[in-house]
Amino acid sequence: MTQTYRSYCPIACSLDLMGDRWTLLIIRDMMFLKKQRFEEFLESPEGISTNILASRLKSLEEMGLVEKQPYSSHSRRMSYHLTDLGKSLRPVLKSMMVWGLRHIPETAVPEREE
Amino acid sequence: MTQTYRSYCPIACSLDLMGDRWTLLIIRDMMFLKKQRFEEFLESPEGISTNILASRLKSLEEMGLVEKQPYSSHSRRMSYHLTDLGKSLRPVLKSMMVWGLRHIPETAVPEREE
Repeated sequence: MTQTYRSYCPIACSLDLMGDRWTLLIIRDMMFLKKQRFEEFLESPEGISTNILASRLKSLEEMGLVEKQPYSSHSRRMSYHLTDLGKSLRPVLKSMMVWGLRHIPETAVPEREE
Repeated sequence: MTQTYRSYCPIACSLDLMGDRWTLLIIRDMMFLKKQRFEEFLESPEGISTNILASRLKSLEEMGLVEKQPYSSHSRRMSYHLTDLGKSLRPVLKSMMVWGLRHIPETAVPEREE
């Protein structure tokens, strides 16, 4: 990861990487909803814009959390997958899921949630 | 909490509340470093600005995560404390701390960390 950090605090550094409203949602889509394609991320109910999605996917690749590959041998379209480092964020996402379910009214886990 | 959420997903809703680079750092300062006063938050190594700090403290109060009270009976200065709801974020912060320590080089827990 080539990244400038604000301090040596592991929480602050984690937030330097993923402290925004969108990055962890893209990881959520890959981790729990098995989404892989640009169009699939666009379909999520939060309504990410194409330019934010493209920007975050590029950052996620640069951070080593996501890798892309051609969707098929006959396609120039790409599919996106979590690396092992990306998959290691599962406890962070789970802790937010548990907190949200417990403390924010009307939240629910999407149908395809595992 | 009076807040507009992007979806019913507990992760997305959590990020609606705390998905930025600063909110969880102020909570970190209260939770682990026992900071209470505006000036103490300003001293953290990440260098939060006074206007961002004031804005985030106001939001944290509105979300019910933080409450303020006069620092002493003879002072107009305020001290800030986590509510029970704020304290319930401990597992989220811990998961980020563990992830950062494990995966981001050179991170370390500050001396006053408990």
